[in-house]
Amino acid sequence: MRIEEKRKDPPKPRRKKRSGRGSLEKNGAPDFPGRLRRVRRAMASEGIPALVVCRLANIRYLTGFTGSSAILLVGHDDACFITDGRYDEQAHLELESSSFSGDIMIYGAESLADSIKAAARKAREKRIFVEADAATWSFVLQLKKWLRGYKIEPASNLVERIRASKDAWELARLQEAARLTDEAFAAAQGWIRAGVTEREIARRLIDFFEDAGAEGISFEPIVASGPRSALPHARAGERRIEKGDLVVLDFGCRLEGYCSDMTRTVAVGPPDGETRRLYSIVRRANGEGIRAVSANRMAGNIDAAARNVIRSAGLAEYFVHSTGHGLGIEVHEWPRIGKGVVDRVPLDCVITIEPGVYLPGLGGIRIEDMVVATRGGRRVLTRSPTGLIVL
Amino acid sequence: MRIEEKRKDPPKPRRKKRSGRGSLEKNGAPDFPGRLRRVRRAMASEGIPALVVCRLANIRYLTGFTGSSAILLVGHDDACFITDGRYDEQAHLELESSSFSGDIMIYGAESLADSIKAAARKAREKRIFVEADAATWSFVLQLKKWLRGYKIEPASNLVERIRASKDAWELARLQEAARLTDEAFAAAQGWIRAGVTEREIARRLIDFFEDAGAEGISFEPIVASGPRSALPHARAGERRIEKGDLVVLDFGCRLEGYCSDMTRTVAVGPPDGETRRLYSIVRRANGEGIRAVSANRMAGNIDAAARNVIRSAGLAEYFVHSTGHGLGIEVHEWPRIGKGVVDRVPLDCVITIEPGVYLPGLGGIRIEDMVVATRGGRRVLTRSPTGLIVL
Repeated sequence: MRIEEKRKDPPKPRRKKRSGRGSLEKNGAPDFPGRLRRVRRAMASEGIPALVVCRLANIRYLTGFTGSSAILLVGHDDACFITDGRYDEQAHLELESSSFSGDIMIYGAESLADSIKAAARKAREKRIFVEADAATWSFVLQLKKWLRGYKIEPASNLVERIRASKDAWELARLQEAARLTDEAFAAAQGWIRAGVTEREIARRLIDFFEDAGAEGISFEPIVASGPRSALPHARAGERRIEKGDLVVLDFGCRLEGYCSDMTRTVAVGPPDGETRRLYSIVRRANGEGIRAVSANRMAGNIDAAARNVIRSAGLAEYFVHSTGHGLGIEVHEWPRIGKGVVDRVPLDCVITIEPGVYLPGLGGIRIEDMVVATRGGRRVLTRSPTGLIVL
Repeated sequence: MRIEEKRKDPPKPRRKKRSGRGSLEKNGAPDFPGRLRRVRRAMASEGIPALVVCRLANIRYLTGFTGSSAILLVGHDDACFITDGRYDEQAHLELESSSFSGDIMIYGAESLADSIKAAARKAREKRIFVEADAATWSFVLQLKKWLRGYKIEPASNLVERIRASKDAWELARLQEAARLTDEAFAAAQGWIRAGVTEREIARRLIDFFEDAGAEGISFEPIVASGPRSALPHARAGERRIEKGDLVVLDFGCRLEGYCSDMTRTVAVGPPDGETRRLYSIVRRANGEGIRAVSANRMAGNIDAAARNVIRSAGLAEYFVHSTGHGLGIEVHEWPRIGKGVVDRVPLDCVITIEPGVYLPGLGGIRIEDMVVATRGGRRVLTRSPTGLIVL
């Protein structure tokens, strides 16, 4: 806990790219062909002869393509990337630098059907699986029309499970994104005071990340003060922070495609005893959740470790969400760290631990960290102190 | 055409909310119950007894809910809104102020199935339609499991078609968002010069909108210079603008939930004759596209009006996308203004007209305006000049 009596001027934003990014260089480049091999191994073990990948984050993971429209067909020893005319040049540039070895097809206004039929013809069996969590029902109905004679079946989380284990290159980016997030929080403590609007704080966070050389934010920052802190997903509004408020800050940046995500709750002016009591319960839940993380642990058990602290305090009904989620290319990834989830957190998976309590009309408290599951343990990527900071 | 010899300082961002928003007040509030009535009329005429709405923009349109997770079941004379625990308080606040008359259900970790079953039990028939363009295949498979004995069928663009006709309240927001976009472009002409990076321009556009009182941007600005302008969806990168570049700026803001979207292409330093010729072709295509807009016109005919100009110039293969799209709560809405599209643009629908040509390795030119389809005509919402501006 830290009580600041004097206001300090906020740190000057750095207008230059940070120089401390040297650590990122030495981790080489992503191994795209290796990723595709792992997907094929998983397909083989699940009896999937061909997979239509339609989640853009999965396509980016497998091919390096960063555009907003593409489909990737993965067969046992071939692959076909399909995008539309807007991305012709970009697709060729990005897939060449990721050593993509399959076909690249560009479709115009009317030939997506033809591209997909051509790609499907290469499949060994007339049985094609589709990413059911990402494909719209319309797309699947369309596909069934286009590919008469093929059996179209749902696949779930196949690429997502592989993406969950981060390699050294990815962990370096996630660590660096977490470090920038810690720095942003340290800076934010100089901005938060009575009279400032939530939106102003959110905007300074966004500017901070831009100035620090991040690609941008990983999601619109949540800055929720006073009674609004009881809304777990309040974003930032025009409300002015008042003395006596709790302020929930939930924010993160994106660095070379990888997301950070951290939450801290600070008090503006000395809080009362009840607030301190609630805060210490959430802090213990965050700590117990973190201590429960290790590779191959069941997600539901990690959730339970955090949730039990809040339940024992009689506050179960005020903890209205899951304890956490995976993150990487997407800010919410597989696995969900929720009640009863039987998925196991794989080695080198990065997840959040973010228990909270929300008392409607009064306020809310949430504390969130990014944690890597290691063999028999964990490494916490976000290092900001979790003790109650009073500003 | 304007040749600026001297550099002017960029206009000072205004730190206060604009005062010129008075025009927005007089258009009253959105008529949420009226919107729901129109949806029910459309359902009746299409023989749809119950509809599961899962596109968040549709849910916002019908209930005012702005959160990121919800399902709305609409029956003939009842409706049921379902969200999760994070949005309990927010949903009650927002749906109360939109006079939502149906049930509100909040589900915890395990009871979405129960909520949906309870909502389905109210349906008169055991036949439920689902928004197939928005629902994932997983969700539909889940629904089929939960609602055994019900027939689950796909519905397409039902709410989207109603959303396409904007009311006075919506048109006022779209007009104001377009006006801010014009102002941002006027300001941007003071920022674009050799040596400045694309990203710096993009960031100043974002700041401009924030300062002007917009909620934010409607999408990440595209600032594509030199050879990168040939990538129709290039976003903004670290490239520094050079003398002789064309710079494509495609950007917009969000105002009270409504999106603007405009593109202009400017030249940095005097362009050569061939560039001027290409520019004037795209400009004519934009003009012909706009002149083709009127209520009840087939979207494909509007596309053809713009496309024919480019085709006649022998550049058909370099115009690689549709001519435009609807916009409103989403920056891309029904209808698509594309080749052969038979949907008719309804009265008071706002669409973009954005033809472009892209010569790989050389550069691209695109000009985009926002247009309202009126009875027998049109009104252009974006007013920035379309003549080639040389900076």
